[in-house]
Amino acid sequence: MRVLGVDPGLTRCGVGVVEGVPGRPCTLVAYHVVRTDPADELPTRLLHLDRALTDLVAEHRPEAVAVERVFSQHNVRTVMGTAQASGIAVLAGARAGLPVQTYTPSEVKAAVTGSGQADKRQMTVMVTRLLRLAEPPKPADAADALALAICHVWRGGTRSRLAAATERVRRGGAR
Amino acid sequence: MRVLGVDPGLTRCGVGVVEGVPGRPCTLVAYHVVRTDPADELPTRLLHLDRALTDLVAEHRPEAVAVERVFSQHNVRTVMGTAQASGIAVLAGARAGLPVQTYTPSEVKAAVTGSGQADKRQMTVMVTRLLRLAEPPKPADAADALALAICHVWRGGTRSRLAAATERVRRGGAR
Repeated sequence: MRVLGVDPGLTRCGVGVVEGVPGRPCTLVAYHVVRTDPADELPTRLLHLDRALTDLVAEHRPEAVAVERVFSQHNVRTVMGTAQASGIAVLAGARAGLPVQTYTPSEVKAAVTGSGQADKRQMTVMVTRLLRLAEPPKPADAADALALAICHVWRGGTRSRLAAATERVRRGGAR
Repeated sequence: MRVLGVDPGLTRCGVGVVEGVPGRPCTLVAYHVVRTDPADELPTRLLHLDRALTDLVAEHRPEAVAVERVFSQHNVRTVMGTAQASGIAVLAGARAGLPVQTYTPSEVKAAVTGSGQADKRQMTVMVTRLLRLAEPPKPADAADALALAICHVWRGGTRSRLAAATERVRRGGAR
């Protein structure tokens, strides 16, 4: 399956696309960093982000989108912008009719490094190794987005199907 | 000018449309509350909110959109959803090519009641009086959205023109 991962941010938003199946190494398709100018007003920035993410989804045609879940414990100065960017990323996937799954940073770290406490350097090392790249993806925002996509390939497909089944049961019987 | 105000929320999002000119009483055009089901997944909720706001903008054809600015000091349990909803609201205005202005809760309270510390009840009383309604708008989320729209009519038009002029100067000369 092909998955597009998004590490949401208003100034720099990482996007990584990989292809693979659970339990096997994934293949890199592409990575990007969408930037918006902090000097621009919020509507301009959100519009640019929305268009860039919508274009990347259309270009890479993933089967699913994985977005990092944002917590209010994050950097307070930037958390509102990050939350807004994550909303735009989730919406871009949903508008394309794709399943969108969110993951906590610890879930992604555990999936990719085996430890929910891994640091940024360790994540970059593992992403580089898992995708068999000649050198680390730059900038690091892209590595986080690729890690999200790998995490979804390895965990998410299954979880989404489970979630969908649970949802059907909850809503009153299989459909 | 006709302004659409948005009091962002993921479970209940208030929308109020008024028409008026600075310094004169505004006229009510319409108000709505867009609801999403907390039992639904985030992508479904954001998609529903996006469609509802986009439809309301298309239906009421405002000249500007005013959205309440969200702070991380808000209720921590709901702040991330509120921030994502505010991002969707700002985007809905920007995608329609409209100027979008954000206001802090104190700015709105000061514009409508004369005090930045006004409580919810006082805001509802003033919105009902200013729009010469027979009874208070229900639910209260709608009153906050109407207050945002009134605030923009009275303050925002001017501020937007000033901001646009400043922007032109900053970018190097009048265009």
